[in-house]
Amino acid sequence: MTMIAPTEPLFHHSSKAYLGLIHYPVLNKNAQIITSAVTNINLHDLSRAASTYGLRGFYVVHPIPDQQELAQRIMSHWTSGYGAAYNPTRKEAFLKTHVLAELAQVLSDIIEIEETPPRIMVTGATPRSGQISFDQARQLMTSGPPILILFGTSWGLAPEVFERADFILEPIWGPSPYNHLSVRSAAAIILDRLLGRTSS
Amino acid sequence: MTMIAPTEPLFHHSSKAYLGLIHYPVLNKNAQIITSAVTNINLHDLSRAASTYGLRGFYVVHPIPDQQELAQRIMSHWTSGYGAAYNPTRKEAFLKTHVLAELAQVLSDIIEIEETPPRIMVTGATPRSGQISFDQARQLMTSGPPILILFGTSWGLAPEVFERADFILEPIWGPSPYNHLSVRSAAAIILDRLLGRTSS
Repeated sequence: MTMIAPTEPLFHHSSKAYLGLIHYPVLNKNAQIITSAVTNINLHDLSRAASTYGLRGFYVVHPIPDQQELAQRIMSHWTSGYGAAYNPTRKEAFLKTHVLAELAQVLSDIIEIEETPPRIMVTGATPRSGQISFDQARQLMTSGPPILILFGTSWGLAPEVFERADFILEPIWGPSPYNHLSVRSAAAIILDRLLGRTSS
Repeated sequence: MTMIAPTEPLFHHSSKAYLGLIHYPVLNKNAQIITSAVTNINLHDLSRAASTYGLRGFYVVHPIPDQQELAQRIMSHWTSGYGAAYNPTRKEAFLKTHVLAELAQVLSDIIEIEETPPRIMVTGATPRSGQISFDQARQLMTSGPPILILFGTSWGLAPEVFERADFILEPIWGPSPYNHLSVRSAAAIILDRLLGRTSS
């Protein structure tokens, strides 16, 4: 086996990609529409993944002011509180994380930055008619208007979010028929498939 | 853009791969060797990812009996407690998750199953001399003896674990120089790079 010497990979920031984590409207296990709770670890893991894959922004979307405030408080510990000195890489990860009440505000924010509305791509664990492949989705990253990739918490995005989408991404499958990944794992894998590369 | 109809992917279970999550010896932020605490969400996310990617086993390695018991108690809620009825997919994910005190016990367990010792592959966020590429690592999955992929909690695996490894996997890089992923995200991405595929 040939071994490789560690080298600094070449970095590029050509994609205009954004991430959104939706807490409403999402489904519960009985396919009812609910509002899910903010989860500390989701903010951390998705902010870190968004930074690794060079995303231009990560939006935490929650309609309830108390929950928005909780998300802000968690982040401020790391961006300006004790955590900022303890772990500067966490501060860096949160710099592009924003908390907004609804998808419409996310679209407005991206339009303000990019001067054009993003294409919306939704993700989920269920195969759906009209879905696009990972290869097709990867092409969308390298040209055209900005793209907003949406993930649902709890049991996934509600049908009304799918209806607003320009693209539905095919589900992740491994070699097993089991495909119940956490939203943290699914987001990491999808960002890697769409924006990652192996350095060798 | 051509859209694809959702189809059932073909599943295969040809790899003899195992996952290990190490809590000792790992490093803290000052590069000192420590024992880290069991984290509820790591058990869930890595068990679910291991099931998705068809691993033969996931070992949670912790030297302290109280912490082993905590890990077992978390899992038993989902395998035989209330959670087993509430979410059967979580029960399924934990079926191949085992808690052991040290790496030597993991090796013995795999030898008992496979009748041969596994090759050990370690992972980390720092480039190292002698590391192998993801392409090379992917080849290791499809032939030869079983392979045990090790992940470190906290600030990563201690040097003594690297010394015991047969292979050191290159770090994950996205398009950004930031590469501070959580162990949950890193494990998901590595399993996908080594064992995943796109269905189309």
